[in-house]
Amino acid sequence: MNTAQRLGFDKNTKLLIIHADDAGLSHSENMATIQALEKGIVNSYSIMLPCPWFHEMAVIAKNNPQYDLGIHLTLTCEWENYRFGPVLPISEVPSLVDEHGHFFKKREQLCKNATPEDVEKELRAQIEKALGYGLAPTHMDSHMYSVGSHPEFFKIYQKLGKQYQLPILVNEQLMQMVGLDPKAHIKEGDFVIDRTYVGEFPYFEKEGLATYYQSILENLTPGANLILIHPAFDEHEMQGVTINHPNFGAAWRQQDFDFFTSEKTMEILEKQQIQLVTWGAIRNILK
Amino acid sequence: MNTAQRLGFDKNTKLLIIHADDAGLSHSENMATIQALEKGIVNSYSIMLPCPWFHEMAVIAKNNPQYDLGIHLTLTCEWENYRFGPVLPISEVPSLVDEHGHFFKKREQLCKNATPEDVEKELRAQIEKALGYGLAPTHMDSHMYSVGSHPEFFKIYQKLGKQYQLPILVNEQLMQMVGLDPKAHIKEGDFVIDRTYVGEFPYFEKEGLATYYQSILENLTPGANLILIHPAFDEHEMQGVTINHPNFGAAWRQQDFDFFTSEKTMEILEKQQIQLVTWGAIRNILK
Repeated sequence: MNTAQRLGFDKNTKLLIIHADDAGLSHSENMATIQALEKGIVNSYSIMLPCPWFHEMAVIAKNNPQYDLGIHLTLTCEWENYRFGPVLPISEVPSLVDEHGHFFKKREQLCKNATPEDVEKELRAQIEKALGYGLAPTHMDSHMYSVGSHPEFFKIYQKLGKQYQLPILVNEQLMQMVGLDPKAHIKEGDFVIDRTYVGEFPYFEKEGLATYYQSILENLTPGANLILIHPAFDEHEMQGVTINHPNFGAAWRQQDFDFFTSEKTMEILEKQQIQLVTWGAIRNILK
Repeated sequence: MNTAQRLGFDKNTKLLIIHADDAGLSHSENMATIQALEKGIVNSYSIMLPCPWFHEMAVIAKNNPQYDLGIHLTLTCEWENYRFGPVLPISEVPSLVDEHGHFFKKREQLCKNATPEDVEKELRAQIEKALGYGLAPTHMDSHMYSVGSHPEFFKIYQKLGKQYQLPILVNEQLMQMVGLDPKAHIKEGDFVIDRTYVGEFPYFEKEGLATYYQSILENLTPGANLILIHPAFDEHEMQGVTINHPNFGAAWRQQDFDFFTSEKTMEILEKQQIQLVTWGAIRNILK
């Protein structure tokens, strides 16, 4: 039984979640995310609790309960000048922060410095903050997949998924990207996304991301597929956030927004007989 | 001896500080502030420690030590969707925050809820955070003049100015605006700014702020004058920050930026024989 069948579809069904990460990061990210949900084919998104624009996104989320909302568990802040840290006081999770009380920029720093206790406290606090705001999450995933930066952190991520009865994003490619052994962490019966796609830098630099995404859509295989995008606008705010970081930068995010709100993309989906599915639907089926 | 004489100038000297408040609030505010200092006639600014873009502004400040930098002591966050709170953990200053851990929007709420102990802890933490970042402040003032929302808070403000040997903004009009009795709080020998000017909403709504500012410059009187401006750009980010708040909104801030970076304004200053003075110079004279 492949993943499509497990979710109640024919085994040849090309299932796809088009997922917007990083809601809450900035005003630009928030506006692009809601527009991509409203006008585009993005059908699920996740929100970063520790970010400065979280409150605005929470207001938007509460006004738009029709869209699947996940918790984008966050343990890193990769930006040079736009810095944020834990939702908990830094004195309670001192191993998660740099000299200024901000998250580390890289997974490697997180892996070296963070204690599992602090990781669990902070992730739990992020979930509780979302619930305290009255949000009703459908799933959880992780910013930069940093929950995979250490095997112990990944176990915490799995435990929290179970405790809060929310599906979590588990995928072999992402695990390999962050240096985790999939076999050691995936048990039989765990729900796993078969294939995950994220824009790749060489494509962005050469022909732009649209060509890359189009090729993915035209070559999608049956099972559970997930495209992770980061819609925002190539404007001053996002340029400031992502300064010296062209990978996932402002222009990159604009390309994500443009492609996944274009009519042409919707036609490709139709032509390729791609079946969009949401995290909320997956959660309900897995229950 | 009038204030001009006290500062070593002829008694008829029209002294003027053109001061940019709110640095650190947003990327837009930071960019407009540094440009107004570089290209315009703004000669002093102050930085908000609790704001999301503080880190960027601190980096800019350290790269530009030639500009006078004050601490814009912050106890309120007036914005609807862009919310921030104390630099201290909210568990340490619970009386300063709303249900979500953010500062209150209004001085009146601060006055009713905040304890002097929490106010002192938080203000001290803001100053220490600035010093910890390696910043060398020349003065202190207060966002929305909220240090004046209660007589006890104002005494703390005065005490901190003395302890850190930094001049603080004391001005009768501002005190009256927030309901403080100037006589009860100004002792003989205290340094007081004679006249403070801030854009006024009716002017903004009718003819725009330029007419208002021009009139102020053409009618300036001898002594110590201070114009408080809030430069930023009328772009999406600032529109998001200031949503439903046209008073001090994005268009308002763009007008501040435009007027105080225009050549015409520089000509008015020259024609009116206005003597620009900085907080740093005042601090050195008062020592």
